[in-house]
Amino acid sequence: MKYIQNNPKNSVEAMLQGYFFERKHLIDYDSKHKIIYRQKENQVALISGGGSGHEPAHFGYVGEGMLTASVNGDLFVPPSADAVLAAIKKTDAGKGVLLIVKNYASDIAVFSQAKKDAEQMGHIVEMIIVTDDHSIENDVSYKKRHRGVAGTILVHKILGAYAQQGMELTELTILGNNIIENLYTLGVALTPARLPGNQTPSYMLNDDEVYFGVGIHGEKGYRKEPYISSEQLAIELINKLRRLNNWAPHEKYALLVNGLGSTPLMEQYIFANDLRRLFNMEHLDIPFVKVGTHLTSYNMHGISLTLLKIVDQQWVEALQQPTDASHW
Amino acid sequence: MKYIQNNPKNSVEAMLQGYFFERKHLIDYDSKHKIIYRQKENQVALISGGGSGHEPAHFGYVGEGMLTASVNGDLFVPPSADAVLAAIKKTDAGKGVLLIVKNYASDIAVFSQAKKDAEQMGHIVEMIIVTDDHSIENDVSYKKRHRGVAGTILVHKILGAYAQQGMELTELTILGNNIIENLYTLGVALTPARLPGNQTPSYMLNDDEVYFGVGIHGEKGYRKEPYISSEQLAIELINKLRRLNNWAPHEKYALLVNGLGSTPLMEQYIFANDLRRLFNMEHLDIPFVKVGTHLTSYNMHGISLTLLKIVDQQWVEALQQPTDASHW
Repeated sequence: MKYIQNNPKNSVEAMLQGYFFERKHLIDYDSKHKIIYRQKENQVALISGGGSGHEPAHFGYVGEGMLTASVNGDLFVPPSADAVLAAIKKTDAGKGVLLIVKNYASDIAVFSQAKKDAEQMGHIVEMIIVTDDHSIENDVSYKKRHRGVAGTILVHKILGAYAQQGMELTELTILGNNIIENLYTLGVALTPARLPGNQTPSYMLNDDEVYFGVGIHGEKGYRKEPYISSEQLAIELINKLRRLNNWAPHEKYALLVNGLGSTPLMEQYIFANDLRRLFNMEHLDIPFVKVGTHLTSYNMHGISLTLLKIVDQQWVEALQQPTDASHW
Repeated sequence: MKYIQNNPKNSVEAMLQGYFFERKHLIDYDSKHKIIYRQKENQVALISGGGSGHEPAHFGYVGEGMLTASVNGDLFVPPSADAVLAAIKKTDAGKGVLLIVKNYASDIAVFSQAKKDAEQMGHIVEMIIVTDDHSIENDVSYKKRHRGVAGTILVHKILGAYAQQGMELTELTILGNNIIENLYTLGVALTPARLPGNQTPSYMLNDDEVYFGVGIHGEKGYRKEPYISSEQLAIELINKLRRLNNWAPHEKYALLVNGLGSTPLMEQYIFANDLRRLFNMEHLDIPFVKVGTHLTSYNMHGISLTLLKIVDQQWVEALQQPTDASHW
């Protein structure tokens, strides 16, 4: 593997400088704390973040009607609590701050510490934890892994639209948790991510194998299988989600098809088309579809399927509302 | 290599069906001719297209203020003249049609035939040919290759904005040719594209090699070199373009950094940051920057640098004007 980089220690900073070079008319950049942010707006501030290596998440979702700030750690390493605190101070316009955190112990520790510190300084801060990964922890316990993965982007988008429309912090927090309860993601790898530094991946796949249920930080899946086709992947992922969710005909779901890194867009749309046919057969109503490379595991070849059960039709409108975030 | 696909013969159609599933509220799809298009608008229609395998080009650029239609051939194979003619008939609202074609003999043959057929039916049609690849044909002739590559996206965007504002066909054609004369692209591969079907790539690279000057259909570059860093790539590509262009301090350029397929976004932004520092040293003014996976060679790991000399400040405004095209 070759990596377009210079000194790997500075990769995240160089990336954010590059992003700021592109977007400096629309966003600000705090290089000390590695925060991409928007100036204070008369609304609740929405802050997300975590380790890097998941680009365009999350800085690509900072924009009008989406996130107020993204706090960016090193590759797969959470940012510091100080950096999150700095983001809170920069963006709290007196309406409070909502932290949107992907479920993982070390991320939660950092964001919780920042919340506590900010509260002592007089900020009103709430936190929601995204748990959309419905794969299993390992094949001994069969416990749900429940980490936060691609569905996080839908949380950003819906809450961002409501926050822009003036919804208050308490309501946004309740809404966020309601969305998360109805959010289901499963991924499949054709190859593992190969990170700079050439560490050995946590799993290997043969040339003819895929791995269902993988995560975005090298977490293993629930089953390896000989690879046949896009349709095979679509059938397996949909069947697993159906069993979790017991869906009934004519229920409504928003769909996110997410390329996990190096997956060509042609492959993502072919997979989306297989899903389309399967949803038709199930008589499910899919009023919102998004396809693209949205939350990645560096250069992994793979794809994930996220379904959000539409409990309130206004969620669809929130998903459709325009935003100037660069990567929505 | 594994490919997310079913029957490879139907890949392009399945992809376009998947795209239509996502965007059916905004665009139309003619499955017979593999055209993604917008309904007739009271403006000159802009049509582009060519072989597939370059996604999101060109269907991802169909939208308000950008293209009116994209005609999609098979993998690296031009569409038929009939399909281009069908696109002309669908989109000509009486203001005429401009065909934007990437320079390649077989593409030009097809689009020229469709132009001729359409003219016999009473349509007014013009054609411009994008020639932004400034690499060489081969290291015997050193002739410029001048094929159309990533810079084509900037042509779509500027002409799309002007067409929306009511510019007429004759002026759009002149403007298009003026843009193309000031458009320079050079690419570098870290790995060749590996297309479905597992054909042998037209060149191979060792684990420590990069290839400067490659094209987007397996065209070879002008030099292989041991790979060192992002900065090395940025310096080489900028130096080559400087020699072609003899730029003077304080000249203005729009910049497009284009991921050629599987290149992680982190790497694209690191490379963009290296360019930023080099442009600063050259005292060039870069009023517009775009970074992303915009015109690809299927799953190639590589990157290209496009510079457009800003002859008219309004070109920058046209680049900045909003569009609802999905992948701008």
